[in-house]
Amino acid sequence: MDNIKKIQNKLAKKNISAYIIPTSDDHNSEYISDHFKSRAFLTGFSGSAGTLVLTPQKAYLWTDGRYHIQASKELEGKPIVLMKQGLAGVPTIEEFLKNNLKENDVLAFDGKVMSLAFVQKITKNLPFISIRDDVDFISEVWVDRPALPFSFLYKLEEFYSGKPFHEKLEDIRTIMHNHNLDTYILSSLEDQAWLYNLRANDILHTPVFLAFTIIENEACHLFIHTKKIDKIIEKYLKENNITLHEYDSFYTHLKGLEEKRILLDENKINYSIYTSIAKKNDLCFKQDPTLLMKSIKNKKEIENIIYAHVKDGVAFTKFMYYVKNEIKDSNNLTELSVTNELKKFRQNQESFVDISFETICAYKEHGAMMHYSATPETNYTLAPSDFLLVDSGGHYLDGTTDITRTLALGEITDIQKLHFTTVLKSVIALSQAVFLKGVKGVNLDILARGPIWKLLIDYKCGTGHGVGYLLSVHEAPNGFRWQIVPERNDAATLVPGMITTNEPGIYLENKYGIRIENEMLCVEKGKNEFGEFLGFETITYAPIDLDAVDVSLLTEPEKEWLNQYHKKVYDTINPFLEDHEKEWLKAYTRAI
Amino acid sequence: MDNIKKIQNKLAKKNISAYIIPTSDDHNSEYISDHFKSRAFLTGFSGSAGTLVLTPQKAYLWTDGRYHIQASKELEGKPIVLMKQGLAGVPTIEEFLKNNLKENDVLAFDGKVMSLAFVQKITKNLPFISIRDDVDFISEVWVDRPALPFSFLYKLEEFYSGKPFHEKLEDIRTIMHNHNLDTYILSSLEDQAWLYNLRANDILHTPVFLAFTIIENEACHLFIHTKKIDKIIEKYLKENNITLHEYDSFYTHLKGLEEKRILLDENKINYSIYTSIAKKNDLCFKQDPTLLMKSIKNKKEIENIIYAHVKDGVAFTKFMYYVKNEIKDSNNLTELSVTNELKKFRQNQESFVDISFETICAYKEHGAMMHYSATPETNYTLAPSDFLLVDSGGHYLDGTTDITRTLALGEITDIQKLHFTTVLKSVIALSQAVFLKGVKGVNLDILARGPIWKLLIDYKCGTGHGVGYLLSVHEAPNGFRWQIVPERNDAATLVPGMITTNEPGIYLENKYGIRIENEMLCVEKGKNEFGEFLGFETITYAPIDLDAVDVSLLTEPEKEWLNQYHKKVYDTINPFLEDHEKEWLKAYTRAI
Repeated sequence: MDNIKKIQNKLAKKNISAYIIPTSDDHNSEYISDHFKSRAFLTGFSGSAGTLVLTPQKAYLWTDGRYHIQASKELEGKPIVLMKQGLAGVPTIEEFLKNNLKENDVLAFDGKVMSLAFVQKITKNLPFISIRDDVDFISEVWVDRPALPFSFLYKLEEFYSGKPFHEKLEDIRTIMHNHNLDTYILSSLEDQAWLYNLRANDILHTPVFLAFTIIENEACHLFIHTKKIDKIIEKYLKENNITLHEYDSFYTHLKGLEEKRILLDENKINYSIYTSIAKKNDLCFKQDPTLLMKSIKNKKEIENIIYAHVKDGVAFTKFMYYVKNEIKDSNNLTELSVTNELKKFRQNQESFVDISFETICAYKEHGAMMHYSATPETNYTLAPSDFLLVDSGGHYLDGTTDITRTLALGEITDIQKLHFTTVLKSVIALSQAVFLKGVKGVNLDILARGPIWKLLIDYKCGTGHGVGYLLSVHEAPNGFRWQIVPERNDAATLVPGMITTNEPGIYLENKYGIRIENEMLCVEKGKNEFGEFLGFETITYAPIDLDAVDVSLLTEPEKEWLNQYHKKVYDTINPFLEDHEKEWLKAYTRAI
Repeated sequence: MDNIKKIQNKLAKKNISAYIIPTSDDHNSEYISDHFKSRAFLTGFSGSAGTLVLTPQKAYLWTDGRYHIQASKELEGKPIVLMKQGLAGVPTIEEFLKNNLKENDVLAFDGKVMSLAFVQKITKNLPFISIRDDVDFISEVWVDRPALPFSFLYKLEEFYSGKPFHEKLEDIRTIMHNHNLDTYILSSLEDQAWLYNLRANDILHTPVFLAFTIIENEACHLFIHTKKIDKIIEKYLKENNITLHEYDSFYTHLKGLEEKRILLDENKINYSIYTSIAKKNDLCFKQDPTLLMKSIKNKKEIENIIYAHVKDGVAFTKFMYYVKNEIKDSNNLTELSVTNELKKFRQNQESFVDISFETICAYKEHGAMMHYSATPETNYTLAPSDFLLVDSGGHYLDGTTDITRTLALGEITDIQKLHFTTVLKSVIALSQAVFLKGVKGVNLDILARGPIWKLLIDYKCGTGHGVGYLLSVHEAPNGFRWQIVPERNDAATLVPGMITTNEPGIYLENKYGIRIENEMLCVEKGKNEFGEFLGFETITYAPIDLDAVDVSLLTEPEKEWLNQYHKKVYDTINPFLEDHEKEWLKAYTRAI
């Protein structure tokens, strides 16, 4: 905590009224490498999203609904005010600054870790303040700061990617030409990994590498720590006419750009990129064209992803069998031990690369923290009662998975069954949606949220997000959410080939959490005089715990969906199981 | 048709490339008096919405999904291209103009009947063309054009309005003060009628009067044909310090405004108002504050409206009994004859003022035209088979109603029953919605549209609209629609006290149409740590034809809703019926 105090003293000394520390890197990444985790370093709040605002006297932390409960706990006793983003009466950061800064007050930040769009929003709403965008107090106070990440690049063969680099580049150049642009600055790490069909391990569980790309009509420049490139990748880059530059030369290179007509995405570009090029070039702000291309999976990718889900389903089913059986006799299961077992089941699968995010294995009231991860300090021993919520996923060469199942470890109460069954109703309703082309997640969210709202309960997060292909487990621009949150960019029109999670839940603070999560592929349903209809195909294969279902609460069509789903799970998974597991799965996928 | 030719000759002569004739008056009203029906006069298309664009060579008519089928029929054989608004591949008017006008081409219109917002959109998208806003070819070609409407004003007592004029004025002035504005120009006819608690009959079935209002800090100016004001109203206006001006002096008065800070709504203000004041004043564009105030019904209004619905339900139930019985023996029922009977049942109710819109009484394939009205030429004789769709409503001093029932006049097919039952499912799903404060119609539309989309069928209109209080039967800003259509302004956040229709349907061209429509009051459902929950109370009381329901397709919760609804209908309506009607109603509201 004295680190916050140290920065506050600097603020007072330099006459800075507020200092913003976001959770970000130079690429506006959602997940970041340790080097950039300054907000967590200063506050002790370990969630993946949050923004710290310091004034000379006070400290404020904004975080979204997934982390309200966890942040309350982690900030307990610290002089940091928790701002629960999205709740009534809680100001946004801009509103807060507007209420607290006076004319000519100085707002400071490090322009490299702030998105241009965010800075633009602030300068638009607070035209009366001064801005300093070159202030990095973090490096000054963080003595043992981790180095920038280092990992070797590896290639994703066309068998996996479904489309070679040069074709993707051609598609991008077509868009550039159509908009009469000659330069494209790409900063997003996921989009670059996708474009080059390359992966690495610079960010934990997000297989990307720190890089910038500048695409011109004739050249493609890659800025990267060149030590990460071995002979094989070097040859591949050369064959594809990709010009290599050192990562650190990027901003200098930018300052040399003149009279270009540049395409860039204000939501992904950091503020320092903007200030480096703004004066001497024409800027055209558009969403990264790579974003939509990447989100619409090609035929080969879809085939692979479904195969990855089969393997992941086998791993999860074996895990579920293990937990459901062990819990009867053993007193030794803990959140951490079963997390470890789950990882082993995944590691046994072919072409497994990594888990796709830190596993959420949350027993009893831990489940109410949507993004809880167990630590040795919090680790619960499991007993044959209550709910265990397990949200996990794998990266395979064939794709990335994200699945949640909530298991009843023993007898549960009627109200717990009501809540579980209601979450199941929510999943079913969204799974069955059929809709006209043009529909967005904001139109469909009520299908999942509606049954839970009828109990006068809400979950303070979206209902689902896009999933990358051996990339970030959270991928824009598709998602389900009832309000549009511009910075999340998950409200795109749904398109066949997009994959989105369906994960409603009920979270009761200090009691329990229930979430069921499947991934759904957007597919065509038919075309006629009324238009083009789309729908979803569920591609997650693992039993939904029937021990927690109150069958009397389900309608006939709901039962029919569940029975068909469970039949599909059984048929898909059983060939890969041992006999005793098969028998168990048969029972746990029985028609109700 | 030669009238279109006449105008086209004028266009060619004056070197005008395109001329726009909207369906509007000086107040951007949805329903208009005969004087303004120039688009209908020129094209013969009688629907309530449509825009004609003439070029020297061609004629194009845009209309929305409610009228696609009807307009096709009415334009048959005429050299007018029908542009089916909202369908894939059909350009909007701006897109069309953009594709068809070249640099310096002249686009002409009468600025008094064009909303400022529409002109702004065009000038923004077509900065390269010239505009002439003073072109009125209609008056030149329309020789026997109807005069401007004349009707006497009458007062809506506080017993009905629930809030006196001076309190409403005070609320408006508070908003003006909060935004540091000293002048407010109100052009909307409904909003003025609401503000003054006055009504008249200037527009058929919309009890308003042509007027403009200018509110200043100390004065309130009403511009109106003063002949419409009798001694009683004159006294009322004087008592309330309302300054009277002649309607025709409005634009001259506007030109005298200087250095004012003016509040006005670019969607309601016509372009000529804007050009009259733009140069010498500060303009602040905001939605008319009266719009939201008017849409949130006060306690007294709600009480009255529910009473109006009881009376209207009695009238409709008697009508339904009449049709269902007469059809068995009589060959003399026609669309027009039963329309007339229905009006009589309403006229028998206390404090009935008028029907609230032209009754849609559509037999067999006529029902597929969402807004069909029978004429002596189209009038069908009814037989004991097929569907009769009846969409109608009443204006009472206690409020306005809008109800649709589709009656099976005899045996219907299984597929007809499937379609009817699906529409019923849609109505039920939306009726039962529970949602957090902040939700808009765009979030909920899928509840009604979803069951119909699952059959790969769509209805090409919104699912519901706000309803005025003895005002327009279509009232902004609340509604249900899956895409936001800015010019309809029906996507507001839902607020307790708003009343919205719930009217999904299935329309099969050349076959039949099915619509079930109830009105729903937005009500509070509960407040807790998750937020404030809202829901709906259905306030329309009339049986939904059980003869058309396939009970096997309904889930238990759906049956329960229907049974409870029918019980409420029976309990509410039966005290006002004759014995034989009671008995019939008992059967038609039986539990299934």
